[in-house]
Order: sequence, then structure tokens, then C-alpha cells
Amino acid sequence: MNGAESLVRTLVASGVEVCFTNPGTSEMHFVAALDRVKGMRSILGLFEGVVTGAADGYGRMAGKPASTLLHLGPGLGNGLANLHNARKANTPIVNIVGQHATYHVQYDAPLNSDIVGIARPVSGWVKESPSSRTVALDGSLAVAAAMEPPGQIATLILPADTAWEECDGPVAPIEARKPPIPSKESVVAAAKALKGAKRGMLMVSGAGLQERGLKAAGRIAAATGAELITETFFSRLRRGAGIVNINRLPYFAEDVVETMKGVDLLVTAGAKPPVAFFAYPGKPSWLTPDDCAIQQLAAPEEDVVAGLEALADELGAPAEPAGVAEASRPELPTGEVSAGSVGNSVAALLPENAIISDESATSGLASYILAGGAEPFDHLQLTGGSIGQGLPLATGAAVACPDRKVVCLHGDGGAMYTVQALWTQARENLDVVTVIFANRSYAILNIELMRVGAENPGPTALSMLDLSNPNLDWVQLAQGMGVEASRPETAEEFNDHFAAAVKAKGPRLIEVVI
Amino acid sequence: MNGAESLVRTLVASGVEVCFTNPGTSEMHFVAALDRVKGMRSILGLFEGVVTGAADGYGRMAGKPASTLLHLGPGLGNGLANLHNARKANTPIVNIVGQHATYHVQYDAPLNSDIVGIARPVSGWVKESPSSRTVALDGSLAVAAAMEPPGQIATLILPADTAWEECDGPVAPIEARKPPIPSKESVVAAAKALKGAKRGMLMVSGAGLQERGLKAAGRIAAATGAELITETFFSRLRRGAGIVNINRLPYFAEDVVETMKGVDLLVTAGAKPPVAFFAYPGKPSWLTPDDCAIQQLAAPEEDVVAGLEALADELGAPAEPAGVAEASRPELPTGEVSAGSVGNSVAALLPENAIISDESATSGLASYILAGGAEPFDHLQLTGGSIGQGLPLATGAAVACPDRKVVCLHGDGGAMYTVQALWTQARENLDVVTVIFANRSYAILNIELMRVGAENPGPTALSMLDLSNPNLDWVQLAQGMGVEASRPETAEEFNDHFAAAVKAKGPRLIEVVI
Repeated sequence: MNGAESLVRTLVASGVEVCFTNPGTSEMHFVAALDRVKGMRSILGLFEGVVTGAADGYGRMAGKPASTLLHLGPGLGNGLANLHNARKANTPIVNIVGQHATYHVQYDAPLNSDIVGIARPVSGWVKESPSSRTVALDGSLAVAAAMEPPGQIATLILPADTAWEECDGPVAPIEARKPPIPSKESVVAAAKALKGAKRGMLMVSGAGLQERGLKAAGRIAAATGAELITETFFSRLRRGAGIVNINRLPYFAEDVVETMKGVDLLVTAGAKPPVAFFAYPGKPSWLTPDDCAIQQLAAPEEDVVAGLEALADELGAPAEPAGVAEASRPELPTGEVSAGSVGNSVAALLPENAIISDESATSGLASYILAGGAEPFDHLQLTGGSIGQGLPLATGAAVACPDRKVVCLHGDGGAMYTVQALWTQARENLDVVTVIFANRSYAILNIELMRVGAENPGPTALSMLDLSNPNLDWVQLAQGMGVEASRPETAEEFNDHFAAAVKAKGPRLIEVVI
Repeated sequence: MNGAESLVRTLVASGVEVCFTNPGTSEMHFVAALDRVKGMRSILGLFEGVVTGAADGYGRMAGKPASTLLHLGPGLGNGLANLHNARKANTPIVNIVGQHATYHVQYDAPLNSDIVGIARPVSGWVKESPSSRTVALDGSLAVAAAMEPPGQIATLILPADTAWEECDGPVAPIEARKPPIPSKESVVAAAKALKGAKRGMLMVSGAGLQERGLKAAGRIAAATGAELITETFFSRLRRGAGIVNINRLPYFAEDVVETMKGVDLLVTAGAKPPVAFFAYPGKPSWLTPDDCAIQQLAAPEEDVVAGLEALADELGAPAEPAGVAEASRPELPTGEVSAGSVGNSVAALLPENAIISDESATSGLASYILAGGAEPFDHLQLTGGSIGQGLPLATGAAVACPDRKVVCLHGDGGAMYTVQALWTQARENLDVVTVIFANRSYAILNIELMRVGAENPGPTALSMLDLSNPNLDWVQLAQGMGVEASRPETAEEFNDHFAAAVKAKGPRLIEVVI
């Protein structure tokens, strides 16, 4: 058995079931091993940003890592932006990056580059395996590293000769470390602080945003009146009727300041105190009021759910949480199609237990608010601010959850970054409905241009934010990659197209010109 | 005047005339300054791989740097693969990478990352400017660094507050260092070695591949019988009738070994001795024969043309070079359309002084050989092995040379990586004819899979190299981005479509299913 096969067998034994890849010559032994080992589904992306973004979507939904397989430094480079987003989401991912044979690196062939240097900024764990006899163990370590709480990116560099040389076979999985339970002291301190607070706020993130954590948070709210909040851009949030509702912090710093005015206690559970997304002249970066006490209940790497439940119990909170969302569906909209009408339609027609992959940017407000009363669903967001994540994220989520409908709400500017994801959706017949909000601009930048104090923008500046010359035709783009697509002209047409897309199985794209 | 404006003014004064960009919030002051300063053309790409690849194409043809403007670490990350290719081409590029305000970095906002770490593997020069008062000087240093022989990538990181704070205005350009003239000793030694060699080979690269360097190389060949050779994947080569012809090294290591068998002297002029592109089990990485002497005439950072001319004079070479290519055009092909027929058509119809951007991969042999007798043109290749360079490279070359026709020959697999380049070509009405060789596979990998010794590839392995499920429709993809496109079915139809595309002004795409 060669090193590559020992690695694939070890990954499978460690619970890695999917490999998103765009391989090259140096990865051919790994690719060949995929046929000799059962249990690893191999999914091709036509660009590495698709591969890494899909691994993020998979990891968020599966709660365990997919593997990527990338072609040397440039292949990793192409995947770097969505690895950045995944890093900010604490998603477990195992990158396998091919490298020249150990003895070949010295010759500085055209594809030679500093792979460790490229990997380091996005990886919590990086290792270049020195021998075919160490590859399996390193693979096992990589999976354990990826699962290190709260989840991180582990990058294993695989020189070609360590893949093709003989080895001693696979190794057994290494058990991942469980997240530590928050200390009794921090639970007691949080309870005491909340009882004494005039206006307490409980900020929850990570694993705390699923049903159990939210229920405990709702019980804490019922006992203390604490307001529940999460960050503006969360990794994964369970939402909908019967689930405890948690508000998001606003995007703009001054709105966060307004939200937190008068808050004298911030209890954090897996979350970091809010900071501004960008700096703006004369505006604060640190957004917690100066006279607000901060009490950490659970660090991001701790067991947030256990912390929340312990706190609820410590407070003697009632069994019934406060703030449970009521069932509500808006009427189907009529008339002009707009971001608002689309939000309305999506909220009205969202199927039960759907997954929303949300990179709707400036067009997403209505869908975000209105969907809160639908049957429960999972909501995934752009965590690292690097646009071009939504289509790959939807792709990976659909692979992780083949029985659930994925609805991808996406701005046109961001969608162009990793548009190749549509081809993978077609190839794998993934159950994703993509809605493109075609406002034909980087709309957020028109706002930001003013907010940063760039005075009197001229035609050159404005043209750098404008996507209307020429207009993108999303129907042709999608069809060119094998995805059925349409462009409804009215709200009624959108209702029909979206309902049909939800009912059908397989990828569909709907372009809405707004 | 703010720092951003001082930087733009300094760049323009230093000869930087074009900024390829995909900006975000942290770059808005730079964008706004573009309207206040004359002389900087600003070109939007919908993905950063387009931006950096275009800067490479521009730099190769203009002989001076374009600027890029990229959005923090992830924006740079998206551009990394084509910066890798540019680094291998020694192309001068000035990257301007936005960063959070200096005081904001500590808060680790979502877009925060280690930008210096991401930049270092592809950059010869990296600096983060600490103040609005240093930005202009740093911009001037960046341009000089980019022009440092033989050309390199300079990355200037621009924190948002250094862009928006007041400064002392622009600074004067710093004169770039000229490439040093090769020493008399190395010229004399090369002449002596060539006179004594049984079979001498002169390997030329970099600036030596333009008309003057090739002429001197041809004179050396006339005087000594030395064989002229260049690397497999060169940055820019002048070719065609009346130009001294220089052979390329073959791609596969064993073919290089065959080519160099019996060569007892290798003289290098701006080139490095050949090495294998990849390592293969049991095959050599270092390809120069063991008993072949190596004599360096000029290092890559030296004045290669001066070295070649000095060597020709030292040898008392005749004024007329050997190996001048004769004018020849093939007949227009008829019958089935194929990679061969397309090569034939392109060679027959290539306009004078065209620029070929060549990422034709396994489909390019015929066009490469047959075009050698056309009117002189420049031939650009994929230098770093990271596919997805050809469309952006063509885009940048067309910006640098608006009066020349650019012909982009591209495999379908690589073209999908940076397909967004077509939109920029449409927006800027760039004079590029793109030919897509749609073999619907990563064809080279089918060959490499065997060559690396991966035995009995199964259906999973083969499906990772296959792009036929679903087929890409390049006509729809191009039209979806505003580029006229067609899919000729016969050689005659291709002749007609290509001739019409060459005659017209503006971008066209022709898909050839092979």
C-alpha cells in the first residue's frame, strides 16, 4: 500500500466521508486511491474557491470535517478566501495540499512555492508530512486538529513521493478533544451579575445557536429579563416557529452603539464582545459601552450549551423559555418584484427544515426578518466578510444534508466570484435553489463610500462599484453550467418560479433584477 | 490632501498608468482619489484572479508595472495564484492591498487576517505603510522595487487611516536600478567554452527573447553552431518571419533528457538550467546531462541582451544571424474542426504584430508550430503552471497594447478558473479573440495519471479529470458576460468565424468542441 492509500483509509476511518477537490499531477496518487477505498465521496469543483467554500458548508452542517484536495501552493491560494471565511466560522476542515516530491523542491520548478507560508494565515494546524510512513498518522492528527474545539482548519501538505512510496498502512483515529465545560465559578459569577444588572445582555455564538442552546438562553431571559443577541454574521443559527428568537447585532457600528446604549452587563457565551466591521473616521471600533461590565460565561472553545444550561439552572430559571418565535407566514406578494417581495415570497414558501445560505448583502433584510416565523430552518451566513462564499457554502450544505432543501440568497457581485459552484451543483444534482439579487452593483460600497468620508465621488470611483456595463445575464450563465434558470418579471412570477423550484429536486437558479 | 491621493499621485508620477482593481470598503479613499488625479486608468475585475492576471499581462507587454488594488487579505488571496504565475514570469507589479485602520487591527474584525503572511510567498518586496505621511514614499519605493531587475512583485499594504489622514503630498519617483551588464569574464569564458564545445547549447530567457536578443543569439549560433533553446513556458517571446527562431524545451522530463543528450556545454543567458516540471517515480528532476559543463553568461537579473551582444562580438560573429524564420502561412484547413485545424487556421489568419496569450495546454501544439512563419508577433505563456491565467493575461495585454490584436488560445478547464475576465473585456471593449478548446476534460491529467504510476485508475479517479457532466456551454457563458460568441462545427466555419473576429474590434469568443 502506498502513502496516499494509507492516508485515504485513515481519513475514512476518522469519519471523513467527503473530499471536495480540484486535483493536479502531484495529487494523482491520492485520486487513484479513492477508487481503492470505500467510503469517501469525491466531488469536483472547477475552481478551488468552490472546493473550500463547499467544505465550509459541509463542515457547518455535518459538524465534522470534509477533506479538500488542492494542487500545491496556487491551488491552496485559490481557496484561501473561503478558508478565511471558514476560519472565522470555526468550521472543521482538513486540507490536503499536494506538493512536489521531497527531493524535487530544491529545483524550484514552475509550480514551486512556499506552501506552509500560504497555509499558515488560514490554518490552526499545518504540517508537511516528511515520509510515506508518517502520512497516515499525520492524517489522523489533522482530523483531530480540525475537530479541536471550537473547530479549525488543519492543513496537511503531502509531497508526491510520500504519496507514491510504500508505507505501513493506515492508523486508527485519534479521538478529538471534547470542549471543556465552563467553570462553576464563571456560571455563578454570570448568574450573580445578571441578577444585579439593570439591563443585561446575553451574547451567544457557536454551538449555542442551535435549538438546545437557544432554549437555555431563553430560560435565562425568562429568569432575568436579559436581552439575547448574537453577532451580525453568524456561522449557523437555528430559526423559526417554536425556536427561541435571538436578535442579530446591526452591521453599522453606530447602530450597534445605539443597540447597546444603557446595557450595563454583557454576558458572553461563545461570543466575543462586538467590534466594528470596518473602521470609520471618528467612529469607535470597540462597541461595548465604557461603563458596561463584561462577564464571560463560556469561551468559544468551551461547551457553550453546557454553560448556558448550567447558568439557567443556577438562576432557577423556569422550564419554559422566553422569546419563542410564533408561527407566521406572510401572504404571497403581488405586483413589482423587488428585494422586499422576494423576501416575502421566500418566507411564505420556505420548506420545513430548509437551509438558507445567505450572502444576500444589501438585499437580504426582508427575507431575514420575514422568515423568522416559518417552520424551523438553519440559517448560514458569510462569516469572514470575503464575498463569494454563498454558492459554494450552499453546495457543501446540500452534500451534507441530501434530504433538506437548500435556498441560496445571493447578491450578484459576490456570486460572480465563485460562479463555478453552479456546475458542481448540476453535476451532483444537488438540491439547491439559488436566488440572485441582480442590483448590478456592489451596492454596499455605494453606502460605504459615503460613510468612510470619501467626498464627492466622481465617475471613476462610481464606475468601480457598478456592474451594469455590461449587464450580467444570470440565466445564460447558469444554463451554460447546466443549471435550469429563469428571470421572473413580477412578484407573481417569482412566486411561481420559486414554488416550482422548491418542489423540484436538483439545482435551479432564479435571477431577480432589482 | 489625504494619504490615498498622495499615493495615487506618486504612482502616476512614477509611470504607473493603470490600476486593475476589485475594491472594498477599506480601499474607498484610494478609489475616490482616482477621480482627483489624472493619468490613472482604473479597470474593474469581478474577481481578483482576473485583476492580478491582467496586471501580469500588462506588465509583460508594457515593461513596467500596473497597480492592483485589492481588498485586504482575502482579496489578495483570491489573486495569489496569478501572482504566483507573474512571479515566475518576473513581471513587475505593484499590489496595493487595503488593510483595516492601524488602530482597528487589534480588534480582529471579521476581515482581519495576516496580510503580510499572505503576501510574502508571492512578493519580492512587502511593506505595510505605518502612516499617511509615509504612504507616498512607500508607493515610490514599491514601484522601484517592482522594476528591480528582472522585475518582481511589490506589495504595499495600505491601512485605511493612512489613506484617509492628511499628509505632506506626493513624492518624486525613485529611479529604478538598471540591470547590471554581465562581466567581461563571463563573456570571455562563454566564448572560450563555446569554441571548445562539441555540442554547445545556448539557453536564453527573459529580455533575451525579444528581437534584439534573439538576433545576437542567432549570430552566436552562426559563429559557433550552438543550438538555441528557451524554457518550455516562457514569459514573452517574439516570433515569426524574419525573427531568429528559438526552440522550446519539451514539457516531459524524458523528452528534455533526449533533447539534451550529447550536449557537452550549456551556456545560460537569463535562464536557469532545465528541471522537470513535476517529479515522477524513477525519473530525474535535474535534466542537464552529468558530463555537460554549465557556463553562465548572464544571470536573470543581469542585462541579458547586452550579454548576448557582447558574446557575439567577442566571438567575431557575422552580422547576419543563423536560424531566421522564413515567412510561411499554411493553407486554410477544411473538413472536421480539431485542435490541429484550429492551429492551422490561427496560423493562416493571425494578424501582423498580434499577441498570443497561450494557455492551450494539450491542444496548442499545432498552433504553436504553424504560427512560426506568420508576420512577427508576441507569444505569452503560462509561466507558473497555475491554470486560469490566459484570459486575464490577454485582458491585461490588450490594455497595454490597444492597437494590437490579442488572440487567446485556452483550454476549457483552465478558462473556467477566471472566466470573469470576459466581462472586463466586454466592459473595456478590449480587442481580444478567445478560442476555447473544449475537450471537456483536464486532458493533461489523464496523461499524468499514467505517468506518475497511478495504476488502474477507476471510475472515481477518471471522473475527477472529466468535465463532460454536464457539458459547459461556452457560448452562453460568454454571452452571459456580454461577449459575442459562436461555436463553429467545421474547419471552414471556424475559418470564417475567426477571420470575422480578427477583423472586428472588441472581444469575441469561439468555442471549439474537440
